[in-house]
Amino acid sequence: MLSGGLDSTTTLAIAKNQNFEIYALTASYGQRHRAEIEFAKRVAEKFEVKRHSIIDIDLRLFGGSALTDNIDVPKDRSLVEMEREIPVTYVPARNTILLSFALAWAEVLGSNDIFTGVNAVDYSGYPDCRPEYIEAFEKMANLATKAGVEGRKLKIHTPLINLTKAEIIKRGIELGVDYSLTLTCYEPSASGEACGRCDSCILRAKGFAEAGVRDTTLYRQQSA
Amino acid sequence: MLSGGLDSTTTLAIAKNQNFEIYALTASYGQRHRAEIEFAKRVAEKFEVKRHSIIDIDLRLFGGSALTDNIDVPKDRSLVEMEREIPVTYVPARNTILLSFALAWAEVLGSNDIFTGVNAVDYSGYPDCRPEYIEAFEKMANLATKAGVEGRKLKIHTPLINLTKAEIIKRGIELGVDYSLTLTCYEPSASGEACGRCDSCILRAKGFAEAGVRDTTLYRQQSA
Repeated sequence: MLSGGLDSTTTLAIAKNQNFEIYALTASYGQRHRAEIEFAKRVAEKFEVKRHSIIDIDLRLFGGSALTDNIDVPKDRSLVEMEREIPVTYVPARNTILLSFALAWAEVLGSNDIFTGVNAVDYSGYPDCRPEYIEAFEKMANLATKAGVEGRKLKIHTPLINLTKAEIIKRGIELGVDYSLTLTCYEPSASGEACGRCDSCILRAKGFAEAGVRDTTLYRQQSA
Repeated sequence: MLSGGLDSTTTLAIAKNQNFEIYALTASYGQRHRAEIEFAKRVAEKFEVKRHSIIDIDLRLFGGSALTDNIDVPKDRSLVEMEREIPVTYVPARNTILLSFALAWAEVLGSNDIFTGVNAVDYSGYPDCRPEYIEAFEKMANLATKAGVEGRKLKIHTPLINLTKAEIIKRGIELGVDYSLTLTCYEPSASGEACGRCDSCILRAKGFAEAGVRDTTLYRQQSA
């Protein structure tokens, strides 16, 4: 599962390093930060994936999130504020929907392995990034599909789940990831410059700082 | 969840009878039997649902099913043949995807109750119609969402899961369901006449016969 962000790109690099043949799945779901889809395409090309599918699903139909509606994306929040509650950038059931599509494709491909970059450390309070959620999804997936009935075992790989952002970046750098190809921001410019102020930008910048790696992210207002 | 078929319409009637306020969700997923969407609209209208959402998701992207691809829908099969293996009309991970969308909408609405007409008796061999699958989905759903984190409990209601087709029809008739409004066929005509020969038609006709209820389904070739 490839959003074009830092986490999913690192996950792709890890899967590739483990010699998996890569089928990358990106969702266009009405997100305001649609620019990330172009980043996903570039990443998929760079890593020479076998196939890159972009599915269109319109999560705006239901609303309920700052990432798809006209609700302000929070800015300049401290880590304490981020951890206090589930933020308005949470998209209801997004990971469940995206994993379900990955499951459908895996079943058609005959693949037993889905990789996702979910992360429970710097996870910004989303319930569907927790290890117990992933375990429950995997269990359900094995009952949902032919693979499960036939005794194959589908695995949801979450190589980042217990890593800090800094650890993720260090791992990516070891694997040769060029993070300037990735976009993490919730409210980038149309051309993909990051805002530098949303939760996602703040966690990303903190990660680079802690990893001691130069942050090559292009920010919207370098002077701000 | 309302497909416009016999099972989901009966389920709607049961939920309505239990005094739930109904938000009906129908998926347009590239199915060949698209006519069912018009039936779903008529059913939703008849039952005066609070809102009817039709989501567009293109499951043809991945392929792998006779319901979305150019694979022949099996005809004139016996019950023994139907039970032998998972049929080509199985759509990979369809119920998981559809339930995920229902979950997203329920979360936005603040609803704790999702009703689905899945049925494990005359279930035509689909893995994602089994009770253990539904239980696993419910468990996952409660870990995936705000509701779960906040201690609310989301329930997947499956009032038909242990009923035979005949029992479903009898229950529906008690509740005043007009089955001529429903479409179950996998390969109907554009105007929604049933083929009478696919697994779905055969199980439906058998249900009416066993229930001793006149089958008001409109078939494509009455002479065939």
